[in-house]
Amino acid sequence: MTQTPITQYPEREVLDGTIVLCVGYDGARFSGYAEQPGQLTVAGEIRRALQVFLRRDVELTCAGRTDAGVHAISQYVSFPAYESELEILRKRWMRAMAALLPSDISLNQVYHASPGFSARFDARARTYTYRIATGESKPLLTRNYCWWHRMPLDVGAMERAAACLVGEHDFKSFCKVASAVGKPTCRFVREVSFASERQLGEELIAFTITGNAFLHSMVRTIVGSLVEVGSGRRDEEWLAQALAACDRLAAGPTAPAQGLCFMNVEYDDGVLLPCPVA
Amino acid sequence: MTQTPITQYPEREVLDGTIVLCVGYDGARFSGYAEQPGQLTVAGEIRRALQVFLRRDVELTCAGRTDAGVHAISQYVSFPAYESELEILRKRWMRAMAALLPSDISLNQVYHASPGFSARFDARARTYTYRIATGESKPLLTRNYCWWHRMPLDVGAMERAAACLVGEHDFKSFCKVASAVGKPTCRFVREVSFASERQLGEELIAFTITGNAFLHSMVRTIVGSLVEVGSGRRDEEWLAQALAACDRLAAGPTAPAQGLCFMNVEYDDGVLLPCPVA
Repeated sequence: MTQTPITQYPEREVLDGTIVLCVGYDGARFSGYAEQPGQLTVAGEIRRALQVFLRRDVELTCAGRTDAGVHAISQYVSFPAYESELEILRKRWMRAMAALLPSDISLNQVYHASPGFSARFDARARTYTYRIATGESKPLLTRNYCWWHRMPLDVGAMERAAACLVGEHDFKSFCKVASAVGKPTCRFVREVSFASERQLGEELIAFTITGNAFLHSMVRTIVGSLVEVGSGRRDEEWLAQALAACDRLAAGPTAPAQGLCFMNVEYDDGVLLPCPVA
Repeated sequence: MTQTPITQYPEREVLDGTIVLCVGYDGARFSGYAEQPGQLTVAGEIRRALQVFLRRDVELTCAGRTDAGVHAISQYVSFPAYESELEILRKRWMRAMAALLPSDISLNQVYHASPGFSARFDARARTYTYRIATGESKPLLTRNYCWWHRMPLDVGAMERAAACLVGEHDFKSFCKVASAVGKPTCRFVREVSFASERQLGEELIAFTITGNAFLHSMVRTIVGSLVEVGSGRRDEEWLAQALAACDRLAAGPTAPAQGLCFMNVEYDDGVLLPCPVA
């Protein structure tokens, strides 16, 4: 589980194309997506698997870095690739990654893209889902994938409050303070929705949000604030006021990481090409 | 995590009534439901929590003992109770058990029943669900709750084959050999069904079976045999022949434990009474 140091990468030049991996992971065991020295990270494990498979080091770019404990169903990771690597068949990728990745990281799909494609900068939209259990009993099989809030929530009130988030706004109130310093904090939220789900025997509330991009801790702080409304500690209008304040102190607490799941990324049509199958 | 030895239980006489706990558990960490010396077991953990809460030892009876790795959504556990224990309010039970049970055992509900009630002998029907993933990618968030079979399965063929199981049959072919010696092996299967489920981002096949009672490893051996049919290694008629043979060697392999989940138990109407709430 030790991280191999990044060896000298030959050149930063654009190679023959880009390989894009769509991966999922269970965030519980990891200190987040991004590599950190001496920590178990998603990027570190993917890079290690690729080093074995491709016999070289790769520089990975991901659509959205996730914090420690946050899960992903469809995270996109890209790296510049040599022609010989673009000839690797889909089946070989799937089998190799199933063998080389730990059981809590899974390769869903392999794509090709043009040279210079970036899983991060070419992403048009990102979708996150946050799950909350409100039953009197502890959630069981989903316990690592939701926040057990224990008290009933007024989902109607949360839904009405959340409507103010849609559109282009300065979301500074919902950004981790240290990450907001000197950086643009405007983002476009396209859609928010609530659903009741039954997952592995438990009733869960699922809050889903889609936007062009998200600030550090933005979804979790939005959820923490929505729960303030749903539990009756704040009224429905408070969320719009918190948003307008552009001050982290105006918003609610940050919801725990384990309830958050990075669900999907959207790219322009035709940008992701299928990996050859034969 | 050491098991407290069963201390001398005062008398086997019927006490003032019976307390029935409906519990769920994630089987991954446990050496099965039943207590075994030196092993971490579901019954051991429940008994330990009850010892702390009730300040005495209890003798537990469960609706269906599950093997190592098998999960439960609704398992019923009963024990004879003193009058003072029957006065404990539901809320106190829920809070105490949430605190005293480990995170992978959860109390769903508390009931009262007449003296002499047994969660095992009074059960009229039991339902199990077995989940299978057949995608090319490893199942991720559900990886501990399904069997990753990897190859596509012909669910239609499995469905037609499974029809022969419904009714009263000698299921000796589907019983662990050592457990069938000198014991009745006839059981009544009321219903079998297949469903496609989406759970935590993964597509799963769920096989559900309801019967009066089940032999040791019966559901898992039925599933292992159905997968023989679904994968094309055996034809649809083979399952009925395997059933008729009354010989474990005639059936297929036993499917892995982690895909199995004990879903529910049925008792006669009015037998389980609500625990007082105030």
